[in-house]
Amino acid sequence: MLQKYQSLVHSTIPLTQYMKWSILTLSEFEITTSTQLAPNINVHGTGFAGSIYAAAMATGWTLLKCWYDQHHYNTELVAAEANIKYFKPVNENFTCQASLSSDSEQYQKLVKRLDNNKSCGFKQKVELLCNGEVCAKLTVSFVFKCS
Amino acid sequence: MLQKYQSLVHSTIPLTQYMKWSILTLSEFEITTSTQLAPNINVHGTGFAGSIYAAAMATGWTLLKCWYDQHHYNTELVAAEANIKYFKPVNENFTCQASLSSDSEQYQKLVKRLDNNKSCGFKQKVELLCNGEVCAKLTVSFVFKCS
Repeated sequence: MLQKYQSLVHSTIPLTQYMKWSILTLSEFEITTSTQLAPNINVHGTGFAGSIYAAAMATGWTLLKCWYDQHHYNTELVAAEANIKYFKPVNENFTCQASLSSDSEQYQKLVKRLDNNKSCGFKQKVELLCNGEVCAKLTVSFVFKCS
Repeated sequence: MLQKYQSLVHSTIPLTQYMKWSILTLSEFEITTSTQLAPNINVHGTGFAGSIYAAAMATGWTLLKCWYDQHHYNTELVAAEANIKYFKPVNENFTCQASLSSDSEQYQKLVKRLDNNKSCGFKQKVELLCNGEVCAKLTVSFVFKCS
């Protein structure tokens, strides 16, 4: 499954290849990705804010794509809005982590709406870690679009 | 001046080269950049949310970097937080625009603080246009850090 989504993301979002973004672990409820610092530096030699965002966005998108594929939902996933907070400079290769909690209210609402082929918004959080510390947090307001 | 900042950004933020991001016009108060769609597509063949963000971020950063260089401020510019709203899919090469208004309250506060070598927050808006329509709006909370 990991290889399938790795290939899908690299072939359809070529920026992720250049960024040396790759999937470390993937299930329908959890993802961890790795990104190399070198292609993603800024003028200070630390992680470029745009790269950090893009790595986290690709991570969140891949988790939700994997999840809805597993559930055989006929939907499209688009980003409507996002907020990112930068806490510390990223000065090494870094990881991004995201998970889905099937207990949450928004998860249960999502399942109900997709079961009825209705579009639904969904907020996904992604954490970026470097040297064991959380350096950035992304929250994306995705929309699952059903037609 | 345009060539100087074009070279600076391409050499220090290599992602912008891969993205085919370039500066069209630049003054200390206004910037327009152009980004090619091809290296920045997603699974739908439209602009990847991460690329759109990165192009807009590089645009806002370059304007403020140019501005503080012109004013000879001894400061560093870092992103603390950002919000982006996606309105429409980006299906062609696109431009990003940002400007500074010297009349605004936050501009006048910024000048006062930097004149006294004091750090200061600053919110910069960047608009992304494609086919004459605004497709995304980024607002970055930057910090000018003085030491």
